[in-house]
Amino acid sequence: MNLKKTKKTNEEKDSVSELRQDVVTGDWVVIATGRAKRPEDYLEENSKKLETKICPFCEPSIREQEPDTLVYYKQNKEWSLKVFPNKYPAFARSKRIKHREEGIHFAMDGVGYHELIVTRDHDRGVPLLMKEEVAEVLDAFKTRYLDLMNRKSVNYIMLIENHGEKSGASLVHPHWQMFAIPVVSPGIKLELEGSKIYKKNKKSCVFCDMLKQELSSGERIVAQNESFLAFTPFASRAAFEVWILPKKHQPYFERITEQEEFEAAEILKNVLEKYNTNLKDVSYNMYLQTAPCDGKDYNFYHWHIELIPKTSVWAGFELGTGIEISTIEPEKAAEFLRKE
Amino acid sequence: MNLKKTKKTNEEKDSVSELRQDVVTGDWVVIATGRAKRPEDYLEENSKKLETKICPFCEPSIREQEPDTLVYYKQNKEWSLKVFPNKYPAFARSKRIKHREEGIHFAMDGVGYHELIVTRDHDRGVPLLMKEEVAEVLDAFKTRYLDLMNRKSVNYIMLIENHGEKSGASLVHPHWQMFAIPVVSPGIKLELEGSKIYKKNKKSCVFCDMLKQELSSGERIVAQNESFLAFTPFASRAAFEVWILPKKHQPYFERITEQEEFEAAEILKNVLEKYNTNLKDVSYNMYLQTAPCDGKDYNFYHWHIELIPKTSVWAGFELGTGIEISTIEPEKAAEFLRKE
Repeated sequence: MNLKKTKKTNEEKDSVSELRQDVVTGDWVVIATGRAKRPEDYLEENSKKLETKICPFCEPSIREQEPDTLVYYKQNKEWSLKVFPNKYPAFARSKRIKHREEGIHFAMDGVGYHELIVTRDHDRGVPLLMKEEVAEVLDAFKTRYLDLMNRKSVNYIMLIENHGEKSGASLVHPHWQMFAIPVVSPGIKLELEGSKIYKKNKKSCVFCDMLKQELSSGERIVAQNESFLAFTPFASRAAFEVWILPKKHQPYFERITEQEEFEAAEILKNVLEKYNTNLKDVSYNMYLQTAPCDGKDYNFYHWHIELIPKTSVWAGFELGTGIEISTIEPEKAAEFLRKE
Repeated sequence: MNLKKTKKTNEEKDSVSELRQDVVTGDWVVIATGRAKRPEDYLEENSKKLETKICPFCEPSIREQEPDTLVYYKQNKEWSLKVFPNKYPAFARSKRIKHREEGIHFAMDGVGYHELIVTRDHDRGVPLLMKEEVAEVLDAFKTRYLDLMNRKSVNYIMLIENHGEKSGASLVHPHWQMFAIPVVSPGIKLELEGSKIYKKNKKSCVFCDMLKQELSSGERIVAQNESFLAFTPFASRAAFEVWILPKKHQPYFERITEQEEFEAAEILKNVLEKYNTNLKDVSYNMYLQTAPCDGKDYNFYHWHIELIPKTSVWAGFELGTGIEISTIEPEKAAEFLRKE
């Protein structure tokens, strides 16, 4: 048993990925070689379909996984939700972060945490889960967040869900991925800079002002409850993109109350039911954006959930310009999604 | 004839897209409603495959297109290459740019040019074209660039090619898209800022320094000729990503000579042959990044071509963080691509 553990640690070491900095833009990329083996593997991936045989989350014996980090139980004592490290981590635990220079280039170990949150039933995604079960997912994320946020190698933590083949998901079984990483990512950095400048100039939170406007116009609202608003953003990057924002100013997700967890779960389930029915179970990417945990003050930020349906493929224009082309007005998208 | 033209102008007007600014990040998105009709269309798109029936580029009679902007002929007087406006433009011509405010939000007409460059043969993509024919594509782009760069609504011009179903291409027939747009896009802006700062600090061009290092180490080189180097970038964002850079410092693509056009065509053909054989005709996005044409000085920049094979799907992590995960070291990717 101990021997097996040692072996695993070695494997883990080999699979530590590398964060490389783009010398032009300052952006980071991850070279996660533990996630693929030979160049030839890429050719097979071209025709990869979502698994239909044995599910590693239903058959933990084939999971070859490290022990669960966190488990939630039902009243009948069966497990309902589990958190455990990803077998193919993009970021892996390590005592120290090695840095490396190569001429004008700079790289460091891709150190961090990459964990999975898995609900029990293979065929029950968010639309079929009860509100209480969705709330458990958010509660598990919050619990792990509070545990990891003060680790030395962790400056930013995010939660994502990839649903459906077009989203990049490789498994059907509902699962969420949690990344706790050493760098504040370019995506959130742009939002942080923007909301900081807005706060400085207008003395208010840009997301709070956005909420006010959406609530008063109503034309982009998809759903709401007491604490949350779901709407299609004015500058939607993709058709049927939806944002879910807490109505109250809240920079830090990890400070939400149990009641808010429940309401966030309710509205998330509501929107994903609409994706499921009105957009015929469209593939989507969900991510939860919250302030970094690098010790700085981010009171100008406002955490939220972003949902991007995969109704089109990012092509050369989007990749090259960073400008996304959406082919439906957000106002019409909201109207279509609201349909009962 | 005149009547028909008037009708087209009206249609065009309806299909003018809108550039909406993200109030948080300052980024732009395009809402191009002329490119899709009803929300229901998205459901059909989910199962869309690349066309196999009549090709609108082979049968111009069904193209319902405006007249060609530019035509190249072979010695036998058959056309070899045509440039014409895209039937479903993401950016459309207009005399004036209307601006619009909506509360805290800002938008303007998606004014600009969106043209297609099409080579004659349906089944001959770059790997099967002769070098001279590929050079014609670059020459056509240069010619149109020089014509459009001084128009009032044009501040940035880019060339892209989407190849294969996974790239977002909707047609098999080889074609390149040219966008001449009023905003300098976020993608190029990051590179411009980065290379400007590098120039200020190190008194040299970051791309020239990169070239020096790649030429001296050699491990990431894919191909080269006298004027161009093709290599896998140190911080590759995708597996088998390749950049093609002029070896000489050149901020502005539109200033290349005929000889350089030919050499750029040669190396582009060389790399795409490798994608075709070593990566089994992988889908890819190609884009040509050059300095904006907004009248400012960009002498610190260095134009180049970026090729991104679609070996994996951008999922929630990439979308949320802006950090891309590549699963092969660029050094190994270059080695694999170099294979004859």
